[in-house]
Amino acid sequence: MIHDFSIPGIFLVLAAMLVAAKLLGELAERVGQPAVLGELIAGVLLGGSVLGIVPTEGTGAEIIHLLAELGVVLLLFEIGLETDLKEMFRVGTASLSVAAVGVALPFAFGFAYWAYLPHAASAGIPDLTMSAIFVGATLTATSVGITARVLSDLGQMHTPEARIIIGAAIIDDILGLVILTVVSGMAAGVSVGPLGVLRVLAVAVGFLVIAVLVGRFVAPRLFDLVVRMRVRYVLLVFAIAFALGLSAAAAIIGSALIIGAFAAGVILSGTNQFDTIEHEVRPVASIFTPIFFVSVGASVNLGLLNPAHEGGGGVLGVAAVLTVLAIVGKLAAGWAAPWVKFRRLVVGVGMVPRGEVGLIFADIGRRAGVLNEAVFGAVLVTVMATTFVAPPGLKLLFGRSSSRNETA
Amino acid sequence: MIHDFSIPGIFLVLAAMLVAAKLLGELAERVGQPAVLGELIAGVLLGGSVLGIVPTEGTGAEIIHLLAELGVVLLLFEIGLETDLKEMFRVGTASLSVAAVGVALPFAFGFAYWAYLPHAASAGIPDLTMSAIFVGATLTATSVGITARVLSDLGQMHTPEARIIIGAAIIDDILGLVILTVVSGMAAGVSVGPLGVLRVLAVAVGFLVIAVLVGRFVAPRLFDLVVRMRVRYVLLVFAIAFALGLSAAAAIIGSALIIGAFAAGVILSGTNQFDTIEHEVRPVASIFTPIFFVSVGASVNLGLLNPAHEGGGGVLGVAAVLTVLAIVGKLAAGWAAPWVKFRRLVVGVGMVPRGEVGLIFADIGRRAGVLNEAVFGAVLVTVMATTFVAPPGLKLLFGRSSSRNETA
Repeated sequence: MIHDFSIPGIFLVLAAMLVAAKLLGELAERVGQPAVLGELIAGVLLGGSVLGIVPTEGTGAEIIHLLAELGVVLLLFEIGLETDLKEMFRVGTASLSVAAVGVALPFAFGFAYWAYLPHAASAGIPDLTMSAIFVGATLTATSVGITARVLSDLGQMHTPEARIIIGAAIIDDILGLVILTVVSGMAAGVSVGPLGVLRVLAVAVGFLVIAVLVGRFVAPRLFDLVVRMRVRYVLLVFAIAFALGLSAAAAIIGSALIIGAFAAGVILSGTNQFDTIEHEVRPVASIFTPIFFVSVGASVNLGLLNPAHEGGGGVLGVAAVLTVLAIVGKLAAGWAAPWVKFRRLVVGVGMVPRGEVGLIFADIGRRAGVLNEAVFGAVLVTVMATTFVAPPGLKLLFGRSSSRNETA
Repeated sequence: MIHDFSIPGIFLVLAAMLVAAKLLGELAERVGQPAVLGELIAGVLLGGSVLGIVPTEGTGAEIIHLLAELGVVLLLFEIGLETDLKEMFRVGTASLSVAAVGVALPFAFGFAYWAYLPHAASAGIPDLTMSAIFVGATLTATSVGITARVLSDLGQMHTPEARIIIGAAIIDDILGLVILTVVSGMAAGVSVGPLGVLRVLAVAVGFLVIAVLVGRFVAPRLFDLVVRMRVRYVLLVFAIAFALGLSAAAAIIGSALIIGAFAAGVILSGTNQFDTIEHEVRPVASIFTPIFFVSVGASVNLGLLNPAHEGGGGVLGVAAVLTVLAIVGKLAAGWAAPWVKFRRLVVGVGMVPRGEVGLIFADIGRRAGVLNEAVFGAVLVTVMATTFVAPPGLKLLFGRSSSRNETA
């Protein structure tokens, strides 16, 4: 019963994160921005750059990290619950094309800029090609959490554009796993062959397909039994246990937590108790998702934006170029499926935020010594910029008359 | 971002705890017992004694511990929300008398048995008086969590007996803090004088009184502002942040987390948004409270019940005597306020469970070397027995015709 952290201390941090998230979320809405932008800014304020309230190391940080992961898992579970599989399949080819182009272009841009064009901050990097691969990889990510939350805040989850974006972001996460495996292998000095790449891809896709197929058959029967139990909130508790279990299973076999969580939602959307589950999951998710967004905000290092910071000017210049490449690459993805009719700029902007996924790539590169502090800083600024630019962008686009469909 | 524990691993443990809690809770209800008894047994099964699924050390254990504390805090917050202060004051003298007798008698019984009567397992104890003080102290605790949950499961939270029990258990927690300070001081070789005792008492009582008085004035005005915010679930999030903040404040100034949580509930029961808050807090609490009860069950060491265990026979004999003393002492407390009319046996049984509070006392004694393994084992068995005996006892008593009031 001895702890190297204090429970009252963590409770205070959580209370501060929740209150700050809601206050700044409210402020964001009042000035016409999505609430999630306010939550991210709340994180920046509570993070190490300003107030330093959110712990960054030790058991406290691990607990906040776990609660944040619970938050993104519950968010993706909720999104899965709201997902109409038939509608997703109807826009499936569009999602696939958007995801593919949205991965390929930013990677190519990032790699080419880093490997072939003259720029600051590359001095002293031992392996420029390897470094360029990491820079490119970081730009491929899409944070489904940020975009989904914005779409949900704007009440646009049921538009075809939202379905294309969510589908593409999930596919992007699968591609991200493949890229992660390859670059992690490279960073560790192991070359990952085409077979290894195929295996990761097969595991991630196979998990999603098998889980949804089997789950759609088993879950309705299981939950018809669960609903006959008398204990309180038994549906809710089983639904959340199901989401936790499937998330963990996905992660353990080499896929990602959020893919399992999304699959769990899609599966339970086929049960007869779907309405009750969705209604009761919402308040639980509403407590955890702000922890996630505040955590993402708290990981931002404002010092990198200071030109007076050592090498800050160079970092900012590189970051500006990378940010433009990152945004252009994803925006272009909106035009990837000319045979489907949808608002292309909306989809492109929806794919822009890199969020926590980009941070993970960048962090692996830094720890492996492939990205030096300056490059890491520039990549981080890019991740931050893309994450913060998407919410107001989407708000602006959806705010325009929806009759003005931009089609190819 | 490196962790010495695995997030998927913790997710699986949580999923197992939730599912087991609901399955065994259901089983308990089907055989006519309260669900919480099933949740405690689920904990025993998942604990180190049987399956060993719930982690007992390392970061994983600390995370489960924190989530369990969140569970008991949310439970006490819910109970506070349902508490009618006027009704509590109406039975206040009864609660106070029940608490005082329920602390004094078990302490006297435990101390006298250990210090003056011949028994096994006391061989080799250096300071028998000190050891006897710890044994007595362990018997004074009342686990408000267990009893409150049983009363709530049985739909009896609004009976006068329930109010007396909850009031007495809260007062017992305050007295427990005083006893804890004294015995912890003793264990550390520091003598705590009458002034020190008074200070702890004043802090705990003062916190409760000031928090409720100030809170009852400030909170309705604050929440009238909060409800005008537009962001989703803003009432729920602020209410939970308030509960976390007040719990932490209570613990930090030297009172207990659950006293702060209870005060937060009492305070918010005076807001105009009380109904919405209570309605939305319930599903959130329903996820965390099972974690608490399963954790309490998981801390049970079944090996101590095995007569073949080293010294097991002696331990069991001592445990049997202590259990009888522990039960008789609390039952007698039911007759402590002859001037108020209530079902005395119900109140007595409601005060019996020692739960996690007893475990904390015993653990301090063991770590200070004041209780050897055998005594610690006997005390633990007593805590377990009292915790497991109360739920079916209350169920039995409330099952009888409520017209048969047992009054002095």
